[in-house]
Amino acid sequence: MKKAVILLSGGLDSATCLAIAINNDFEPYALSFRYGQRHDFELNCAKALTNSFKVKDHIILDIDLRAFGGSALTDDIAVPKNRDHTTFSEEIPVTYVPARNTIFLSFALAYAETLGANNIFIGVNALDYSGYPDCRPEYIESFQNMANLATKSSIEGENPLKIHTPLIDLTKADIIKVGINLGVDYSLTHSCYDPSKDGFSCGHCDACQLRVKGFEIAGRSDPIKYSN
Amino acid sequence: MKKAVILLSGGLDSATCLAIAINNDFEPYALSFRYGQRHDFELNCAKALTNSFKVKDHIILDIDLRAFGGSALTDDIAVPKNRDHTTFSEEIPVTYVPARNTIFLSFALAYAETLGANNIFIGVNALDYSGYPDCRPEYIESFQNMANLATKSSIEGENPLKIHTPLIDLTKADIIKVGINLGVDYSLTHSCYDPSKDGFSCGHCDACQLRVKGFEIAGRSDPIKYSN
Repeated sequence: MKKAVILLSGGLDSATCLAIAINNDFEPYALSFRYGQRHDFELNCAKALTNSFKVKDHIILDIDLRAFGGSALTDDIAVPKNRDHTTFSEEIPVTYVPARNTIFLSFALAYAETLGANNIFIGVNALDYSGYPDCRPEYIESFQNMANLATKSSIEGENPLKIHTPLIDLTKADIIKVGINLGVDYSLTHSCYDPSKDGFSCGHCDACQLRVKGFEIAGRSDPIKYSN
Repeated sequence: MKKAVILLSGGLDSATCLAIAINNDFEPYALSFRYGQRHDFELNCAKALTNSFKVKDHIILDIDLRAFGGSALTDDIAVPKNRDHTTFSEEIPVTYVPARNTIFLSFALAYAETLGANNIFIGVNALDYSGYPDCRPEYIESFQNMANLATKSSIEGENPLKIHTPLIDLTKADIIKVGINLGVDYSLTHSCYDPSKDGFSCGHCDACQLRVKGFEIAGRSDPIKYSN
């Protein structure tokens, strides 16, 4: 089996991405981050998912992105609610975390190199998404080009590093349908940017809106709890 | 003044790089990492240098690269001594830390974006160096291309991000001469991969060999202390 590093936030997308990697016969090594996000619900979900899918190993790294600030997810900035989700991709919201995917992919690259893995999976999506620049296909392709000049294995190894983005062209509804077919237990995932203290999702932030709409279009019921 | 993020390890190269940035009228914001390296001497030097040069701000981030291992600088692997430094660039030694510069530059990108800075300085050198893949010009250029697709400011801003590598084509001797002209106090720098407990440099690891040879060719005396 080929080893693969899977970036696993504990959200709906990365959970589906993990299931796809396993379904494609990759041996999964999960990587998550405690990066100064406001809450730990996502990380608890990431742990539950790694148990559910029996991943080979799971590293949770501490990196303090609050040192820089500049995002509603890591700073004292209000998470926007009830935005018009038909125009999400036209503007970049305050939930954008500067260079987050670049930092996450860089650590995934380090992990992959020490494992001798040539495959990284990331659940970015360029269709039903919040308009983040580091979710676009041209960004991912460019990161892959850079990665193939960055490491010892890129010079000495025979197989180039591949960054897999199996969700990039899927709608949220399609992602959910694929995941259900592959046995993803979506009750173990968390999407909300601004959950209540007891872990209920708000239902109104961008992430909740995309998730709710996705389950609706997919004709499935969302197993997680919402505040209202 | 234009803001610039300077990656500052506390070594000879990054100290010179900081002096060059200041000499080119950039307002310096220094970024250092406690990444699981075996000793803290470098970081103490980084702090001393930021005081000496009165940088605008200095962030020291904790990131645990020991979680992955795979290097003599972060793991329980012996630092090689007395290698033939005329052939350094032909093989990649065990002091290589997987994806380190990619991780460092990614954090510099996040810092730059939150500052509204379009300039990052990194003291990589492709001439008198240890043969690390992430010190080569083609790698740096590729990272810059990726960075200009990665961030909100790369989409909305007018000025592309520039990664400055003022040392890339200089010999170690040239770097030292430039630094002395710009007032770098090299007694505040540290290069050794394997110092004694009281901070004396070993004189025999790759970093020491390059430094010793550099001062010799430059015809200057190295103000730091060596074990022998």
